[in-house]
Amino acid sequence: MAPVEEAKSSRRFNFSAGPAMLPDLVLDKIVEELGDYEGLGMSILEMGHRDAGGPVQQVLQEATDCVRHLLRVPANYAVIWQQGGAHGQFAAVPLNLLGDKTQADYVDTGVWSKRAMNEAGKFCTTRICAEVRERQGKAEVPPVSEWDLSDKSAYVHICANDTISGVEFLEDPDVGDRLLVADFTSTLLSRPVNISRYAALYCSSGKNLGPAGVCLVIVRRDLLDMALPRTPMILHWKASADTSPVASLVNTPPVFAIYACGHVLKGLRRSFGDCGTLDTVRQRVTRRADDVYKIIDESEGFYINKVSSSYRSQTTICFTFGRDAANQREWAGSITAKVKLTELEEAFMKEAKERGMNGLEGHPAFGGIRICLYNGLPDKAVDEAC
Amino acid sequence: MAPVEEAKSSRRFNFSAGPAMLPDLVLDKIVEELGDYEGLGMSILEMGHRDAGGPVQQVLQEATDCVRHLLRVPANYAVIWQQGGAHGQFAAVPLNLLGDKTQADYVDTGVWSKRAMNEAGKFCTTRICAEVRERQGKAEVPPVSEWDLSDKSAYVHICANDTISGVEFLEDPDVGDRLLVADFTSTLLSRPVNISRYAALYCSSGKNLGPAGVCLVIVRRDLLDMALPRTPMILHWKASADTSPVASLVNTPPVFAIYACGHVLKGLRRSFGDCGTLDTVRQRVTRRADDVYKIIDESEGFYINKVSSSYRSQTTICFTFGRDAANQREWAGSITAKVKLTELEEAFMKEAKERGMNGLEGHPAFGGIRICLYNGLPDKAVDEAC
Ligand SMILES: Cc1ncc(COP(=O)(O)O)c(C=O)c1O
Ligand SMILES: Cc1ncc(COP(=O)(O)O)c(C=O)c1O
Repeated sequence: MAPVEEAKSSRRFNFSAGPAMLPDLVLDKIVEELGDYEGLGMSILEMGHRDAGGPVQQVLQEATDCVRHLLRVPANYAVIWQQGGAHGQFAAVPLNLLGDKTQADYVDTGVWSKRAMNEAGKFCTTRICAEVRERQGKAEVPPVSEWDLSDKSAYVHICANDTISGVEFLEDPDVGDRLLVADFTSTLLSRPVNISRYAALYCSSGKNLGPAGVCLVIVRRDLLDMALPRTPMILHWKASADTSPVASLVNTPPVFAIYACGHVLKGLRRSFGDCGTLDTVRQRVTRRADDVYKIIDESEGFYINKVSSSYRSQTTICFTFGRDAANQREWAGSITAKVKLTELEEAFMKEAKERGMNGLEGHPAFGGIRICLYNGLPDKAVDEAC
Repeated sequence: MAPVEEAKSSRRFNFSAGPAMLPDLVLDKIVEELGDYEGLGMSILEMGHRDAGGPVQQVLQEATDCVRHLLRVPANYAVIWQQGGAHGQFAAVPLNLLGDKTQADYVDTGVWSKRAMNEAGKFCTTRICAEVRERQGKAEVPPVSEWDLSDKSAYVHICANDTISGVEFLEDPDVGDRLLVADFTSTLLSRPVNISRYAALYCSSGKNLGPAGVCLVIVRRDLLDMALPRTPMILHWKASADTSPVASLVNTPPVFAIYACGHVLKGLRRSFGDCGTLDTVRQRVTRRADDVYKIIDESEGFYINKVSSSYRSQTTICFTFGRDAANQREWAGSITAKVKLTELEEAFMKEAKERGMNGLEGHPAFGGIRICLYNGLPDKAVDEAC
């Protein structure tokens, strides 16, 4: 994984939930190219997306090809780029998938799951079909066999990694013939994904994928005819999938964000050759997460992580202080509430900052400490932290 | 207007409809800062928007302040940045302004007006209340007194400059107590705007405002309580206006696009000092447009522009060849149709390219030649072209 290893000494490490660090080589390349794209006398920022076969369309095509290659996207799936972030897709999912139905199922694993559900509630009835439960003091997701799935529901939605609670699906659930939709915003590109288990999945940029400003959507083509008539064009999957000569030209695309994500994707692809897979990435992700969880687990209750090992996020690691009674919070809060830091947390944060570690505050709604190990963070940063 | 004047010799001039050229100084500054923002050891691309008072929030605040200053935005208007481009706002306008009504009026001045209307048609009944008419062979917009405005309509929508037809409102229409909404995508920052004539106006980036990826919305605050319950959060004006400590943090903002637009705005502001206004910009815009129209008008019918001088776009100048019979097209086509270039047009385009002028093709749906004189285009480019 050469591109992400060699951190420059002047670089400040950012362990925050995002927007996240970019791999050094990617950032260097973007800076190098930005003034003049491929000697054309223009910046990529200044080029038209309607120029058939021109640089912007090439950039779009290359980024899409990389997604298909890295994630082994089956041919019967469309890959599109939309604006509006994951919040856009929180609305797009019901709008594009409800069809004749008026209800959808949501698995609740934290704040982001709920937020997706609340937004969908504008367009249909939503049901919590499963939620995190506590078993011997640890949070876990019930197995699919115990989910209360309704035949009346158009789809079932999960948050692949709930960035705030630190609960992750380490494997892709099998819901049979039902339509499974996943928000992969905080973990796409951290492991191989069995795409064919999903009807659709999406990932807003700002974490592993590249800088903020675009949302990647992967959707099974046979589902593209279900959009409600009142779906805004910018969230209409079929409209995006059907533009020519490349997809995602329904309107002016967010060129820079797609371009930058393209470099991240190309960097990943280069780093393990054309026959590599995201398995290599998963090994690195798991090794780094293990290093951090080991410290937590061996701290004899000084640090506490309340998630069962089968659902522990490998990317967004949340913990609180065991000795800190005020800190025995619920694993999921509301996104608008503001939780004050405890004294211990503040002391920890201060010391971490002095050691050059930034962004360790948990989400304002949840508090505690959160260590995010996105792909752009160099190994050196994790080693030094541990 | 120093910042936009000194074109570097290696720069290729781009006369296309957008994304447009950036002023040299702005592009230089962005390239210079991108690797390391203000010596912080991180790129602006890598910074969190939830960091209270941090760089991303400052960037957002500064860009917003510049908009308020340059456009003299009255205090009772909110200034927000949303994703989804102008197409997002085509849906956002009815969703946020319909209230109890189910109908809206649209002035049709070309393809973009129609496209806004078609998108709104997903949410309400739309009526064309006025459309471009021909008078002595020239297209003009009827005066407001002749618009067939309906009391049942929630608002009346205009396209301030229809980029494809080249029909521009050179003055802000006065519709009295009715709510006027305008798409200023291709001409914001080209002239002073009487903001208080509008209920809301929007401008997708990619032209004068900066690189593609964000849409600026200016809306009267007393109208913020009308949004329909089914408005997606990303298009909900009030939700965007109400976030703290700065607006537009409803979800991860498209940081780079806002940052880059901020530099464009600061560059403009700097170039005529704190007491300057967009009048200075209008003088330059008018002078350059006059130079081009003069050639057309003095060509004795070789070049033909079919728009009346009171509605001639000062930014997107469209013309065809008079001797070219096949070229007597309607002034507005459908956006999906593809019009073939005539032989004369092709010859013209070829010669223009040899002289370093790029992007002169009219919109694929309309054909003809289109010369776009956005702010980022250096005067030198216009002089050489004329
Ligand atoms: C899992 C998850 N979903 C959704 C979001 C929201 O994404 P956006 O801000 O692009 O709407 C985030 C952002 O942190 C996230 O982590
Ligand atoms: C007047 C006008 N409105 C709307 C648009 C579309 O903007 P967007 O592609 O950001 O949706 C354009 C783009 O060229 C335009 O010129």
